[in-house]
Amino acid sequence: MSSPRKVSEPTVRRLSTYYRTLEDLAASGQETVSSGRLADAGGLTSAQVRKDLSVFGSFGVRGRGYPVLHLRDALKGILGVDQDRPAVVVGAGRLGTALASYPNFSARGFHIVALFDVDPARVGEHVGDAEILPADTISDWVRRHGVCLAILATPAEAAQEAANRLVAGGIGGILNFTATTPEVPESVNVRSVNLSIELEGLCYAIRESGLWESDREGGAS
Amino acid sequence: MSSPRKVSEPTVRRLSTYYRTLEDLAASGQETVSSGRLADAGGLTSAQVRKDLSVFGSFGVRGRGYPVLHLRDALKGILGVDQDRPAVVVGAGRLGTALASYPNFSARGFHIVALFDVDPARVGEHVGDAEILPADTISDWVRRHGVCLAILATPAEAAQEAANRLVAGGIGGILNFTATTPEVPESVNVRSVNLSIELEGLCYAIRESGLWESDREGGAS
Repeated sequence: MSSPRKVSEPTVRRLSTYYRTLEDLAASGQETVSSGRLADAGGLTSAQVRKDLSVFGSFGVRGRGYPVLHLRDALKGILGVDQDRPAVVVGAGRLGTALASYPNFSARGFHIVALFDVDPARVGEHVGDAEILPADTISDWVRRHGVCLAILATPAEAAQEAANRLVAGGIGGILNFTATTPEVPESVNVRSVNLSIELEGLCYAIRESGLWESDREGGAS
Repeated sequence: MSSPRKVSEPTVRRLSTYYRTLEDLAASGQETVSSGRLADAGGLTSAQVRKDLSVFGSFGVRGRGYPVLHLRDALKGILGVDQDRPAVVVGAGRLGTALASYPNFSARGFHIVALFDVDPARVGEHVGDAEILPADTISDWVRRHGVCLAILATPAEAAQEAANRLVAGGIGGILNFTATTPEVPESVNVRSVNLSIELEGLCYAIRESGLWESDREGGAS
Protein backbone atom coordinates (compact mmCIF):
# COMPACT_ATOMS: atom_id res chain seq x y z
CA MET A 1 0.00 0.00 0.00
CA SER A 2 1.63 3.26 1.00
CA SER A 3 5.40 3.39 1.33
CA PRO A 4 7.10 3.49 4.76
CA ARG A 5 7.42 6.98 6.26
CA LYS A 6 10.28 8.39 8.26
CA VAL A 7 7.72 10.10 10.45
CA SER A 8 4.66 8.12 11.49
CA GLU A 9 1.08 9.17 10.71
CA PRO A 10 0.30 9.85 14.38
CA THR A 11 3.33 12.18 14.53
CA VAL A 12 2.20 14.12 11.47
CA ARG A 13 -1.29 14.34 13.00
CA ARG A 14 0.24 15.83 16.16
CA LEU A 15 2.29 18.29 14.09
CA SER A 16 -0.95 19.44 12.44
CA THR A 17 -2.43 19.99 15.90
CA TYR A 18 0.59 22.03 17.03
CA TYR A 19 0.35 24.04 13.83
CA ARG A 20 -3.30 24.93 14.55
CA THR A 21 -2.49 25.98 18.10
CA LEU A 22 0.41 28.09 16.86
CA GLU A 23 -1.84 29.81 14.32
CA ASP A 24 -4.30 30.69 17.09
CA LEU A 25 -1.47 31.96 19.32
CA ALA A 26 0.01 34.01 16.48
CA ALA A 27 -3.41 35.55 15.79
CA SER A 28 -3.67 36.59 19.43
CA GLY A 29 -0.20 38.16 19.32
CA GLN A 30 1.59 35.74 21.63
CA GLU A 31 5.35 35.57 20.98
CA THR A 32 6.47 32.41 22.75
CA VAL A 33 4.81 29.19 23.83
CA SER A 34 5.85 26.42 26.20
CA SER A 35 5.84 22.74 25.28
CA GLY A 36 3.30 22.33 28.07
CA ARG A 37 0.85 24.70 26.39
CA LEU A 38 1.26 22.92 23.04
CA ALA A 39 0.79 19.60 24.84
CA ASP A 40 -2.45 20.70 26.51
CA ALA A 41 -4.08 21.57 23.20
CA GLY A 42 -3.61 17.99 21.97
CA GLY A 43 -4.06 16.13 25.26
CA LEU A 44 -0.37 15.13 25.18
CA THR A 45 2.65 15.35 27.48
CA SER A 46 5.28 18.09 27.10
CA ALA A 47 7.88 15.35 26.64
CA GLN A 48 5.97 14.15 23.57
CA VAL A 49 5.87 17.69 22.15
CA ARG A 50 9.61 18.20 22.68
CA LYS A 51 10.36 14.83 21.11
CA ASP A 52 8.15 15.50 18.06
CA LEU A 53 9.64 18.93 17.41
CA SER A 54 13.26 17.88 18.00
CA VAL A 55 13.09 15.64 14.92
CA PHE A 56 12.96 18.74 12.74
CA GLY A 57 15.57 20.89 14.43
CA SER A 58 16.22 22.96 17.48
CA PHE A 59 13.27 25.32 17.86
CA GLY A 60 13.09 25.95 21.57
CA VAL A 61 15.11 28.14 23.90
CA ARG A 62 15.51 26.62 27.37
CA GLY A 63 13.36 28.45 29.89
CA ARG A 64 11.76 30.69 27.28
CA GLY A 65 9.75 28.24 25.18
CA TYR A 66 9.29 28.18 21.44
CA PRO A 67 9.05 31.30 19.27
CA VAL A 68 5.46 31.19 17.96
CA LEU A 69 5.91 32.71 14.49
CA HIS A 70 9.13 30.87 13.69
CA LEU A 71 7.75 27.49 14.78
CA ARG A 72 4.46 28.06 12.95
CA ASP A 73 6.25 28.87 9.70
CA ALA A 74 8.60 25.91 10.11
CA LEU A 75 5.67 23.52 10.64
CA LYS A 76 3.85 25.06 7.69
CA GLY A 77 6.80 24.15 5.51
CA ILE A 78 7.24 20.72 7.10
CA LEU A 79 3.59 19.86 6.56
CA GLY A 80 3.82 21.05 2.97
CA VAL A 81 0.92 23.49 3.29
CA ASP A 82 3.00 26.58 2.59
CA GLN A 83 1.62 26.78 -0.94
CA ASP A 84 -1.86 26.48 -2.44
CA ARG A 85 -2.45 22.89 -3.45
CA PRO A 86 -4.86 21.85 -6.20
CA ALA A 87 -6.83 18.65 -5.63
CA VAL A 88 -9.51 16.73 -7.50
CA VAL A 89 -12.53 14.83 -6.19
CA VAL A 90 -13.46 11.53 -7.83
CA GLY A 91 -17.12 10.60 -7.36
CA ALA A 92 -19.58 13.51 -7.50
CA GLY A 93 -22.26 11.94 -5.30
CA ARG A 94 -23.48 13.41 -2.02
CA LEU A 95 -20.22 12.96 -0.15
CA GLY A 96 -18.01 13.99 -3.09
CA THR A 97 -19.86 17.23 -3.73
CA ALA A 98 -20.00 17.99 0.02
CA LEU A 99 -16.23 17.48 0.27
CA ALA A 100 -15.67 19.63 -2.83
CA SER A 101 -17.33 22.53 -1.03
CA TYR A 102 -15.95 21.80 2.47
CA PRO A 103 -14.83 25.25 3.67
CA ASN A 104 -11.93 23.98 5.80
CA PHE A 105 -10.15 22.65 2.72
CA SER A 106 -9.88 26.01 0.98
CA ALA A 107 -9.08 27.71 4.30
CA ARG A 108 -5.97 25.45 4.50
CA GLY A 109 -4.77 26.04 0.94
CA PHE A 110 -6.44 23.04 -0.68
CA HIS A 111 -8.39 23.98 -3.78
CA ILE A 112 -10.71 21.56 -5.49
CA VAL A 113 -10.07 22.23 -9.17
CA ALA A 114 -12.25 19.49 -10.70
CA LEU A 115 -14.60 16.63 -9.90
CA PHE A 116 -14.98 13.46 -11.92
CA ASP A 117 -17.97 11.17 -12.29
CA VAL A 118 -18.93 8.18 -14.45
CA ASP A 119 -22.49 9.49 -14.84
CA PRO A 120 -22.72 11.47 -18.13
CA ALA A 121 -25.78 13.31 -16.74
CA ARG A 122 -23.58 14.93 -14.06
CA VAL A 123 -20.81 16.01 -16.43
CA GLY A 124 -20.75 19.78 -16.99
CA GLU A 125 -22.37 20.64 -13.64
CA HIS A 126 -20.39 22.86 -11.29
CA VAL A 127 -19.67 22.58 -7.59
CA GLY A 128 -18.45 26.03 -6.61
CA ASP A 129 -15.88 26.90 -9.29
CA ALA A 130 -15.06 23.29 -10.13
CA GLU A 131 -16.63 21.44 -13.04
CA ILE A 132 -17.71 17.80 -13.05
CA LEU A 133 -15.73 16.03 -15.80
CA PRO A 134 -16.04 12.53 -17.30
CA ALA A 135 -14.29 9.83 -15.26
CA ASP A 136 -12.46 8.46 -18.33
CA THR A 137 -10.53 11.74 -18.60
CA ILE A 138 -9.03 11.49 -15.08
CA SER A 139 -5.55 10.28 -16.06
CA ASP A 140 -4.98 12.85 -18.79
CA TRP A 141 -6.43 15.72 -16.80
CA VAL A 142 -4.51 15.02 -13.62
CA ARG A 143 -1.25 14.68 -15.52
CA ARG A 144 -1.84 17.78 -17.64
CA HIS A 145 -2.66 19.96 -14.63
CA GLY A 146 0.03 18.52 -12.37
CA VAL A 147 -2.44 17.60 -9.64
CA CYS A 148 -0.88 15.58 -6.82
CA LEU A 149 -3.85 15.14 -4.46
CA ALA A 150 -7.12 13.32 -5.01
CA ILE A 151 -10.14 12.75 -2.79
CA LEU A 152 -11.80 9.43 -3.53
CA ALA A 153 -15.54 9.41 -2.81
CA THR A 154 -16.93 6.81 -5.21
CA PRO A 155 -19.02 3.80 -4.21
CA ALA A 156 -16.76 1.00 -2.91
CA GLU A 157 -17.11 -1.07 -6.07
CA ALA A 158 -15.82 1.79 -8.25
CA ALA A 159 -12.88 2.72 -6.01
CA GLN A 160 -10.21 0.49 -7.55
CA GLU A 161 -10.84 1.61 -11.13
CA ALA A 162 -10.87 5.26 -10.06
CA ALA A 163 -7.61 4.75 -8.15
CA ASN A 164 -6.04 3.08 -11.21
CA ARG A 165 -6.93 6.11 -13.31
CA LEU A 166 -5.46 8.48 -10.73
CA VAL A 167 -2.27 6.42 -10.53
CA ALA A 168 -1.98 6.39 -14.32
CA GLY A 169 -2.18 10.19 -14.18
CA GLY A 170 0.75 10.34 -11.74
CA ILE A 171 -1.19 11.18 -8.57
CA GLY A 172 0.89 11.46 -5.38
CA GLY A 173 -1.70 10.97 -2.66
CA ILE A 174 -5.27 9.77 -2.29
CA LEU A 175 -7.55 10.68 0.60
CA ASN A 176 -9.88 7.70 0.59
CA PHE A 177 -13.48 8.03 1.83
CA THR A 178 -14.70 4.78 0.29
CA ALA A 179 -15.51 1.69 2.34
CA THR A 180 -12.60 -0.19 0.74
CA THR A 181 -8.85 0.35 0.41
CA PRO A 182 -7.71 0.49 -3.22
CA GLU A 183 -4.40 -1.15 -4.08
CA VAL A 184 -1.85 1.27 -5.46
CA PRO A 185 1.91 1.17 -6.14
CA GLU A 186 4.18 1.78 -3.15
CA SER A 187 5.09 5.25 -4.40
CA VAL A 188 1.48 6.45 -4.03
CA ASN A 189 0.22 7.48 -0.58
CA VAL A 190 -3.27 6.41 0.44
CA ARG A 191 -4.88 7.66 3.62
CA SER A 192 -8.28 6.28 4.53
CA VAL A 193 -10.80 8.29 6.52
CA ASN A 194 -13.46 6.44 8.44
CA LEU A 195 -15.74 8.86 10.22
CA SER A 196 -17.34 6.09 12.25
CA ILE A 197 -14.07 5.91 14.23
CA GLU A 198 -14.86 9.42 15.48
CA LEU A 199 -18.39 8.41 16.49
CA GLU A 200 -16.97 5.37 18.28
CA GLY A 201 -14.65 7.63 20.23
CA LEU A 202 -17.64 9.73 21.27
CA CYS A 203 -19.58 6.63 22.28
CA TYR A 204 -16.71 5.60 24.49
CA ALA A 205 -16.60 9.01 26.16
CA ILE A 206 -20.36 9.08 26.71
CA ARG A 207 -20.30 5.57 28.16
CA GLU A 208 -17.48 6.57 30.53
CA SER A 209 -19.49 9.53 31.73
CA GLY A 210 -22.36 7.17 32.60
CA LEU A 211 -24.89 9.09 30.55
CA TRP A 212 -25.91 6.18 28.40
CA GLU A 213 -28.56 4.17 30.18
CA SER A 214 -29.26 0.93 28.37
CA ASP A 215 -33.02 1.38 28.80
CA ARG A 216 -33.12 4.68 26.90
CA GLU A 217 -35.53 4.52 24.03
CA GLY A 218 -33.91 4.92 20.61
CA GLY A 219 -36.85 5.60 18.33
CA ALA A 220 -36.86 6.42 14.63
CA SER A 221 -38.66 9.52 13.49
CA MET B 1 -15.13 21.83 26.95
CA SER B 2 -15.23 18.03 27.18
CA SER B 3 -14.62 16.39 30.53
CA PRO B 4 -11.32 14.61 31.32
CA ARG B 5 -11.18 10.98 30.15
CA LYS B 6 -9.57 8.06 31.90
CA VAL B 7 -8.50 6.83 28.47
CA SER B 8 -7.12 9.37 26.03
CA GLU B 9 -8.60 10.04 22.61
CA PRO B 10 -5.57 8.56 20.80
CA THR B 11 -6.01 5.36 22.82
CA VAL B 12 -9.68 5.07 21.90
CA ARG B 13 -8.72 5.70 18.27
CA ARG B 14 -6.23 2.84 18.46
CA LEU B 15 -8.86 0.58 20.05
CA SER B 16 -11.15 1.34 17.09
CA THR B 17 -8.35 0.32 14.74
CA TYR B 18 -7.78 -2.96 16.61
CA TYR B 19 -11.51 -3.59 16.50
CA ARG B 20 -11.56 -3.21 12.71
CA THR B 21 -8.61 -5.56 12.27
CA LEU B 22 -10.27 -8.11 14.56
CA GLU B 23 -13.49 -7.94 12.55
CA ASP B 24 -11.55 -8.64 9.35
CA LEU B 25 -9.69 -11.52 11.01
CA ALA B 26 -12.93 -12.96 12.40
CA ALA B 27 -14.51 -12.77 8.95
CA SER B 28 -11.58 -14.72 7.50
CA GLY B 29 -11.95 -17.39 10.21
CA GLN B 30 -8.72 -16.71 12.10
CA GLU B 31 -8.86 -17.81 15.74
CA THR B 32 -5.90 -16.03 17.35
CA VAL B 33 -3.85 -12.95 16.59
CA SER B 34 -0.50 -11.69 17.87
CA SER B 35 0.06 -8.20 19.25
CA GLY B 36 2.52 -7.77 16.37
CA ARG B 37 -0.19 -8.35 13.78
CA LEU B 38 -2.54 -5.89 15.51
CA ALA B 39 0.34 -3.40 15.71
CA ASP B 40 1.11 -3.67 11.98
CA ALA B 41 -2.44 -2.74 11.00
CA GLY B 42 -2.14 0.58 12.84
CA GLY B 43 1.55 1.31 12.24
CA LEU B 44 2.25 0.79 15.97
CA THR B 45 4.57 -1.29 18.14
CA SER B 46 3.46 -4.55 19.77
CA ALA B 47 4.36 -3.01 23.14
CA GLN B 48 1.79 -0.26 22.50
CA VAL B 49 -0.87 -2.82 21.63
CA ARG B 50 -0.20 -4.87 24.76
CA LYS B 51 -0.26 -1.73 26.89
CA ASP B 52 -3.55 -0.49 25.38
CA LEU B 53 -5.31 -3.82 25.81
CA SER B 54 -3.98 -4.48 29.32
CA VAL B 55 -5.96 -1.49 30.60
CA PHE B 56 -9.17 -3.41 30.02
CA GLY B 57 -8.18 -6.82 31.33
CA SER B 58 -6.11 -9.86 30.56
CA PHE B 59 -6.97 -10.91 27.02
CA GLY B 60 -3.81 -12.55 25.76
CA VAL B 61 -2.30 -15.97 26.38
CA ARG B 62 1.50 -15.91 26.40
CA GLY B 63 2.92 -17.48 23.25
CA ARG B 64 -0.53 -17.98 21.69
CA GLY B 65 -1.73 -14.45 21.11
CA TYR B 66 -5.19 -13.00 21.60
CA PRO B 67 -8.40 -14.94 20.91
CA VAL B 68 -9.93 -13.06 17.95
CA LEU B 69 -13.65 -13.45 18.71
CA HIS B 70 -13.34 -12.82 22.44
CA LEU B 71 -11.20 -9.71 21.99
CA ARG B 72 -13.43 -8.39 19.20
CA ASP B 73 -16.53 -8.71 21.37
CA ALA B 74 -14.79 -7.18 24.37
CA LEU B 75 -13.69 -4.16 22.31
CA LYS B 76 -17.18 -3.86 20.84
CA GLY B 77 -18.52 -3.49 24.37
CA ILE B 78 -15.69 -1.20 25.49
CA LEU B 79 -16.24 1.12 22.51
CA GLY B 80 -19.99 1.15 23.19
CA VAL B 81 -20.91 0.01 19.69
CA ASP B 82 -22.50 -3.26 20.79
CA GLN B 83 -25.97 -1.79 20.28
CA ASP B 84 -27.56 0.23 17.51
CA ARG B 85 -27.20 3.91 18.34
CA PRO B 86 -29.57 6.60 17.10
CA ALA B 87 -28.03 9.94 16.15
CA VAL B 88 -29.30 13.21 14.72
CA VAL B 89 -27.70 15.59 12.23
CA VAL B 90 -28.05 19.33 12.80
CA GLY B 91 -27.63 21.34 9.60
CA ALA B 92 -29.11 19.80 6.46
CA GLY B 93 -26.77 21.47 3.98
CA ARG B 94 -24.43 19.61 1.63
CA LEU B 95 -22.20 18.20 4.35
CA GLY B 96 -25.06 17.39 6.73
CA THR B 97 -27.07 15.47 4.16
CA ALA B 98 -23.93 13.69 2.93
CA LEU B 99 -23.12 12.63 6.51
CA ALA B 100 -26.72 11.52 7.07
CA SER B 101 -26.32 9.06 4.21
CA TYR B 102 -22.68 8.09 4.91
CA PRO B 103 -22.77 4.28 4.56
CA ASN B 104 -20.03 3.61 7.14
CA PHE B 105 -22.19 5.08 9.92
CA SER B 106 -25.04 2.61 9.49
CA ALA B 107 -22.55 -0.23 8.95
CA ARG B 108 -21.20 0.49 12.46
CA GLY B 109 -24.59 0.65 14.20
CA PHE B 110 -25.09 4.41 13.98
CA HIS B 111 -28.51 5.29 12.61
CA ILE B 112 -29.41 8.82 11.65
CA VAL B 113 -32.99 9.15 12.87
CA ALA B 114 -33.58 12.84 12.07
CA LEU B 115 -32.00 15.97 10.62
CA PHE B 116 -32.70 19.52 11.75
CA ASP B 117 -32.47 22.75 9.80
CA VAL B 118 -33.42 26.39 10.34
CA ASP B 119 -34.65 26.72 6.74
CA PRO B 120 -38.44 26.14 6.66
CA ALA B 121 -38.16 25.23 2.96
CA ARG B 122 -36.10 22.14 3.84
CA VAL B 123 -38.41 20.90 6.61
CA GLY B 124 -40.34 17.79 5.61
CA GLU B 125 -37.75 16.59 3.08
CA HIS B 126 -36.23 13.16 3.68
CA VAL B 127 -32.62 11.97 3.56
CA GLY B 128 -32.93 8.21 3.37
CA ASP B 129 -35.45 7.31 6.07
CA ALA B 130 -34.77 10.41 8.17
CA GLU B 131 -36.92 13.52 7.98
CA ILE B 132 -35.65 17.10 8.13
CA LEU B 133 -37.31 18.78 11.14
CA PRO B 134 -37.40 22.43 12.30
CA ALA B 135 -34.32 23.48 14.29
CA ASP B 136 -36.42 24.94 17.11
CA THR B 137 -37.73 21.45 17.93
CA ILE B 138 -34.25 19.99 18.57
CA SER B 139 -34.34 20.06 22.38
CA ASP B 140 -37.77 18.47 22.72
CA TRP B 141 -37.18 15.91 20.02
CA VAL B 142 -33.78 14.77 21.27
CA ARG B 143 -35.07 14.43 24.82
CA ARG B 144 -38.25 12.63 23.81
CA HIS B 145 -36.37 10.08 21.66
CA GLY B 146 -33.49 9.61 24.08
CA VAL B 147 -30.88 10.48 21.46
CA CYS B 148 -27.35 10.74 22.88
CA LEU B 149 -25.33 11.51 19.74
CA ALA B 150 -25.49 14.50 17.41
CA ILE B 151 -23.53 15.42 14.31
CA LEU B 152 -23.12 19.18 13.99
CA ALA B 153 -22.84 20.37 10.40
CA THR B 154 -24.20 23.91 10.47
CA PRO B 155 -22.35 27.01 9.27
CA ALA B 156 -19.86 28.18 11.93
CA GLU B 157 -22.02 31.13 12.99
CA ALA B 158 -24.99 28.82 13.78
CA ALA B 159 -22.96 26.20 15.67
CA GLN B 160 -23.27 27.63 19.20
CA GLU B 161 -27.05 28.01 19.09
CA ALA B 162 -27.46 24.51 17.66
CA ALA B 163 -25.17 23.14 20.39
CA ASN B 164 -27.19 24.97 23.06
CA ARG B 165 -30.37 23.32 21.77
CA LEU B 166 -28.74 19.89 21.79
CA VAL B 167 -27.43 20.42 25.32
CA ALA B 168 -30.90 21.55 26.48
CA GLY B 169 -32.22 18.27 25.07
CA GLY B 170 -29.74 16.27 27.15
CA ILE B 171 -27.33 15.27 24.38
CA GLY B 172 -24.30 13.23 25.48
CA GLY B 173 -21.88 13.77 22.61
CA ILE B 174 -21.45 16.04 19.61
CA LEU B 175 -19.36 15.19 16.56
CA ASN B 176 -18.48 18.67 15.35
CA PHE B 177 -17.82 19.32 11.65
CA THR B 178 -18.13 23.10 11.89
CA ALA B 179 -15.16 25.46 11.66
CA THR B 180 -15.64 26.50 15.29
CA THR B 181 -15.77 24.73 18.65
CA PRO B 182 -19.04 25.33 20.49
CA GLU B 183 -18.86 25.78 24.25
CA VAL B 184 -20.79 23.16 26.17
CA PRO B 185 -21.00 22.05 29.82
CA GLU B 186 -18.23 19.71 31.00
CA SER B 187 -20.62 16.76 31.05
CA VAL B 188 -21.10 16.94 27.27
CA ASN B 189 -18.44 15.43 24.99
CA VAL B 190 -17.46 17.35 21.88
CA ARG B 191 -15.17 15.86 19.27
CA SER B 192 -14.15 18.04 16.36
CA VAL B 193 -13.34 16.62 12.95
CA ASN B 194 -11.13 18.63 10.66
CA LEU B 195 -10.63 16.82 7.39
CA SER B 196 -7.88 19.20 6.32
CA ILE B 197 -5.66 17.49 8.94
CA GLU B 198 -5.91 14.35 6.83
CA LEU B 199 -4.95 16.23 3.66
CA GLU B 200 -2.01 17.80 5.51
CA GLY B 201 -0.83 14.32 6.46
CA LEU B 202 -0.97 13.30 2.82
CA CYS B 203 0.93 16.44 1.79
CA TYR B 204 3.65 15.53 4.23
CA ALA B 205 3.92 12.00 2.87
CA ILE B 206 4.02 13.20 -0.74
CA ARG B 207 6.67 15.77 0.09
CA GLU B 208 8.76 13.10 1.83
CA SER B 209 8.56 10.90 -1.24
CA GLY B 210 9.96 13.75 -3.34
CA LEU B 211 7.08 13.66 -5.79
CA TRP B 212 6.11 17.26 -5.36
CA GLU B 213 8.22 19.43 -7.60
CA SER B 214 7.72 23.09 -6.82
CA ASP B 215 7.53 23.96 -10.51
CA ARG B 216 4.55 21.76 -11.19
CA GLU B 217 1.69 23.72 -12.66
CA GLY B 218 -1.39 23.81 -10.44
CA GLY B 219 -4.06 25.06 -12.82
CA ALA B 220 -7.74 25.54 -12.17
CA SER B 221 -10.17 23.90 -14.56
